[in-house]
Amino acid sequence: MFESAELGHKIKKSVYEQEVPPLREALLDAQLRLAESAAFPVIILVGGLDGAGRGATVNLLNEWMDPRHIQTHGMGEPSDEELDRPMMWRFWRALPPKGKIGVFLGSWYTWPILNRVNGRTKAADLEQSMERAKRLEKMLVDEGALIIKFWLHLSKKKQEKRFKELEKNPLTRWKVTDRDWKHFKAYDKFQEVHEHVIRHTSTAEAPWLIVEGEDAHYRNLTVGKVILKAIQERLEQEQVVPAKILAPPLMPAIDNLHLLKTLDMKQALSKDKFKVQLEKYQGRLNVLTRDPKFKYMSVIAVFEGNDAAGKGGSIRRITGALDARYYQVIPIAAPSEEERAQPYLWRFWRHLPRKGRVTIFDRSWYGRVLVERVEGFCAEVDWMRAYGEINDFEAQMVRHHLLVVKFWLAITKDEQLRRFEERQRTGFKSFKITEEDWRNREKWEEYEQAVCDMVDRTSTLLAPWTLVEANDKNFARIKILKTLCECIEIKLKELHEEGIDYLDKPKKDR
Amino acid sequence: MFESAELGHKIKKSVYEQEVPPLREALLDAQLRLAESAAFPVIILVGGLDGAGRGATVNLLNEWMDPRHIQTHGMGEPSDEELDRPMMWRFWRALPPKGKIGVFLGSWYTWPILNRVNGRTKAADLEQSMERAKRLEKMLVDEGALIIKFWLHLSKKKQEKRFKELEKNPLTRWKVTDRDWKHFKAYDKFQEVHEHVIRHTSTAEAPWLIVEGEDAHYRNLTVGKVILKAIQERLEQEQVVPAKILAPPLMPAIDNLHLLKTLDMKQALSKDKFKVQLEKYQGRLNVLTRDPKFKYMSVIAVFEGNDAAGKGGSIRRITGALDARYYQVIPIAAPSEEERAQPYLWRFWRHLPRKGRVTIFDRSWYGRVLVERVEGFCAEVDWMRAYGEINDFEAQMVRHHLLVVKFWLAITKDEQLRRFEERQRTGFKSFKITEEDWRNREKWEEYEQAVCDMVDRTSTLLAPWTLVEANDKNFARIKILKTLCECIEIKLKELHEEGIDYLDKPKKDR
Repeated sequence: MFESAELGHKIKKSVYEQEVPPLREALLDAQLRLAESAAFPVIILVGGLDGAGRGATVNLLNEWMDPRHIQTHGMGEPSDEELDRPMMWRFWRALPPKGKIGVFLGSWYTWPILNRVNGRTKAADLEQSMERAKRLEKMLVDEGALIIKFWLHLSKKKQEKRFKELEKNPLTRWKVTDRDWKHFKAYDKFQEVHEHVIRHTSTAEAPWLIVEGEDAHYRNLTVGKVILKAIQERLEQEQVVPAKILAPPLMPAIDNLHLLKTLDMKQALSKDKFKVQLEKYQGRLNVLTRDPKFKYMSVIAVFEGNDAAGKGGSIRRITGALDARYYQVIPIAAPSEEERAQPYLWRFWRHLPRKGRVTIFDRSWYGRVLVERVEGFCAEVDWMRAYGEINDFEAQMVRHHLLVVKFWLAITKDEQLRRFEERQRTGFKSFKITEEDWRNREKWEEYEQAVCDMVDRTSTLLAPWTLVEANDKNFARIKILKTLCECIEIKLKELHEEGIDYLDKPKKDR
Repeated sequence: MFESAELGHKIKKSVYEQEVPPLREALLDAQLRLAESAAFPVIILVGGLDGAGRGATVNLLNEWMDPRHIQTHGMGEPSDEELDRPMMWRFWRALPPKGKIGVFLGSWYTWPILNRVNGRTKAADLEQSMERAKRLEKMLVDEGALIIKFWLHLSKKKQEKRFKELEKNPLTRWKVTDRDWKHFKAYDKFQEVHEHVIRHTSTAEAPWLIVEGEDAHYRNLTVGKVILKAIQERLEQEQVVPAKILAPPLMPAIDNLHLLKTLDMKQALSKDKFKVQLEKYQGRLNVLTRDPKFKYMSVIAVFEGNDAAGKGGSIRRITGALDARYYQVIPIAAPSEEERAQPYLWRFWRHLPRKGRVTIFDRSWYGRVLVERVEGFCAEVDWMRAYGEINDFEAQMVRHHLLVVKFWLAITKDEQLRRFEERQRTGFKSFKITEEDWRNREKWEEYEQAVCDMVDRTSTLLAPWTLVEANDKNFARIKILKTLCECIEIKLKELHEEGIDYLDKPKKDR
C-alpha cells in the first residue's frame, strides 16, 4: 500500500521554483471561484507519520491560499466542552460551510489509530470507529462536500534519518520529542494499523492519497496540484443531480390501518386530576435533574406533532420544572443562510447540550422526513438516506450518555380544525395560524404516511418514539411529563449501577 | 421499529379474493417484461420470525410467478462444498442473473443473528457481519440489482398463539419443533438483536420492509404489491446513468517516477543456474502441497502483466510441480453472456477452489482497474469503487484460509517489441499476437499509471502484490516459484501453530 510512497520522489529546486508561481495563482483563482459560487465545501484531511511534514503542509496551504476562505483545525486533545459531547461533535462544529475550505490536521482517524496502537482499544473498537468515519464521510459527500484525504508517509529508515537530522540542528531540535521516538520504536505496529485503516476507509467517494513526505518540494507540489485539480474538476461539473432512488417503495397501506389510527384519541384528564398530577411529575422531574449523577448525562427532548397539537404548551410544562440555567428550548424554523451552507444535521449538532443540561427541540431533524419529504424540498434519495443518518446521529448521542426522548403529539383532523378556528377568533392567538397551516392540512394523509414511516424506521430501542394522544391537552401534558421522568430515572439508575467506569467509556474512542 | 407490524393488520377474505387475480396477472406481466429486457436482477430476501409465514410466502411467490424466471434458495446448514469456501460464496453462486428473480429464504443475516443470540459470537462479530452484508448489498445495487428485503414479524403473544394453534391440529403439529419453542423462550433476546440488525442494515438503497405475519391475506397482498411496484418502477426508470465521480483525482505523477520504473529490469539467470533452481523450487512446491495441513487451506495465484510478459510459461512451471487432480488454471478472456448478466466479480467467485486445491488465474478481477479502466469499458465511478470491492473480496478469501498470491509480470517496452516481432516471425507463435496487442501497446503510459494505482490501492498485508522483473524469463520464473513457496510455507506454519482451532473460526460467522 505504501510502495509508491517509498520510491524517493524528488523535485529539483529549479523546477519547483518555476512551477510554484503559476500553481499558486491557479489555486487562488479556483478558491475565489469556489467562494463566489458557494457551491460546495472542501474538507482536507492531513494525516500521516510524524516527521513526514504534516504541519509544514498545513502551513504551506495557509500561505498559498486566501486566508479569508480557508480555515485550519489542529485536532489535538479534546477540550472540556468537547469531552461533554459525542466524539464527532468537535469535527461537526468545525466543518467548513459551502464555498470554504477546511483543513484538518488530525482527524476522526487520529485517536482511534493511536488508541489501537497503544492497546487501549480492541480491534473491534477500531472497526467501529472506521465505520463511523465512513458513514460521516458518505453523508458529507451525499450533502455535496469534496473530501480530500492526504496521508503523508515516510519509510522507517527515512523517518529515523529525519529525526536525527532535526536533532542535530539546534534550531530544530525541539521538534523531536520523546513521544516521536516512542512512536518510531512502534513503527511496524503503526504501519500495520495504518494500512488497515487506509485500506478500509479508501472509498470511491473519499479515497486516501498517499504522499511521500521526505522531499518538501515533491510533497508541496503534489498536495497543491491535487487540491487544484479536484476543485477545478468539481467546479466544472454541472450541478450534481441526485441519483434516482433504486430502492423498493416503503410499506404500502393496503388495509388502511396504521399506527396513528390505533391511538385512543378519547383519553382525557379532568382539570382537578391534572393539577394533582402536574404537581407530582413536575416535582419529580425537578428532583431527578438534581440527582448527583445527572451531571454525567444530558437530555434531548424532541417535540414533533400536527400543527396546533400543543407542543408549546407541553414544553412549558417541562421547563416550568427546570432550573433556567440548565435548559434550552430550540425552536426550529426554516434554516438560516449559515445553516443552509452546511449539511442538514449541522443546525442540530450545534445545539447539543453539555453534560448536566436539558435541550428541548420544538421541531427537529425529523423535518427532513416529514415536511421536506411531503413538500418535496429534498429528493427521495435524500430523505430515504436520512433515516439511517438520523439513527446514526442518535446512536452517537446515546453512546455518549445523551438521553434522547422523542414525542409525536397527535390530534385528529376535526380537533385541528376546531383549534385553527379558535385561534383565528382569539386575537392574541391569531398570529399562530397562517396560510401555510391551512395548506399543510390539505396534505393530511401524506403527512400521516410520513409519520408512520418515520416511527417505523427511527423508533429504536436506543431512542424510541412516544406517541401522545393530544386531543386533550391535560392528558397529553401529563403523559409527556411522566414519560420524561421515567426515561431519566432509567438512565440515572444505569449511571448509578455502572459506577465511575462510564466516564471512561466514551474516552476510549476519541 | 416493529410497532406498525403489531397492529393486527387484516384483509377480509372477500377483498383478498377480489384483489388477487389482477395482482397475479400484473406480477406475471412485470416478470415477463423483466425477463425480456434482462435489465436487472431482483433479489428478494425473506427473513423474520418462526411462525410468521416465511415458508408460506416463498411458496406463494413460486405459485404466483412464472417458474422459468424465479428461483428459490433455502439457505439452511451449509454443505461441505460451501464450508470449504468463504462464508458469502454460497450466496454469490446463488445470485440471480439479470432478468431473473432470486428468492432467499434465509440470507446473509440468518447465521450472524442466530450465532449472536446463542452467544456463540460477540457483539463485534455481529457488527462485522453486518458491515460485510451492507458492502455486498451496496456492490450489488451499484451493479444494478434491485434488492427487496422482507422481514415477517409477529408479536410475542401472537407467536405463542400461532405455535399453539399449529400444535392443536394433528395435520400441522409437525411444523412446531422443540427448536421453535426454544427460540420463543428467547423472544426478547431475538428481538433485541433483530432490531439492531434491521436498524443498521436498512440502507437507502436496500431498506428492510417489516410485514406483520399473522394474517396470511394481508401478508400475501403486501408482499405481492411491494414486489410488483418495485419491479414496475424500476422498469419504467430510464437507464440508470452512473453518477459522476465526486472524488479527488488519484495521485498525479508529478516527478515522472513510479513503481515500475524502480524495478531493476536487467536481472537475469543463466540457463544452468535456472535448471538447478527450477528443480529445487518445483520440488519444494510439490512437497509443500503434500503437507498434511495443506488440505485446510487453498491457494489462489493471480497472474497479471504486460502483453507477452510470459504469464503462460510461468504458470506452466508451477503446474509442472503439482498433482493434476488438485489444480486448475482459469484463463480470463472477455466475459460470456452468462457472466455479463452478473456482477463483475461473479465470474471469479465461481472458480474459487475447495480446500486443498490450487487455482491459478491467468488474468483476473484486476481487469476491472486495468483494461476496463484504460479502454473506458466501465465508468470512472465503477473502477474507483472496484479497489475497495476487490480488497473486500480478497479479505474474505484470506479470512477463510485461501492464500492469495498476486504477480505482476513487468517487461520493458523495448522487450515487448522484440517479443511481438519474434512471435510474428515464428509460425507456431503467431496466433498469440493480434491487432489488439498492438493497440494496447500504444497506450503503454496509461496502462503504467493504472498498474501503479492498482498496486498502491490493492497491495495489502493480507494479499500483497509481487512485482516480477520479467525481461529475463528464467529470472522471472524462479522469482515466482520461490515467492509462491515462501507464501505457502508461512501459511502452513500459521496453520500448524494455530492447531485445530482454525477450523472453527470461519464457522462462527456463518
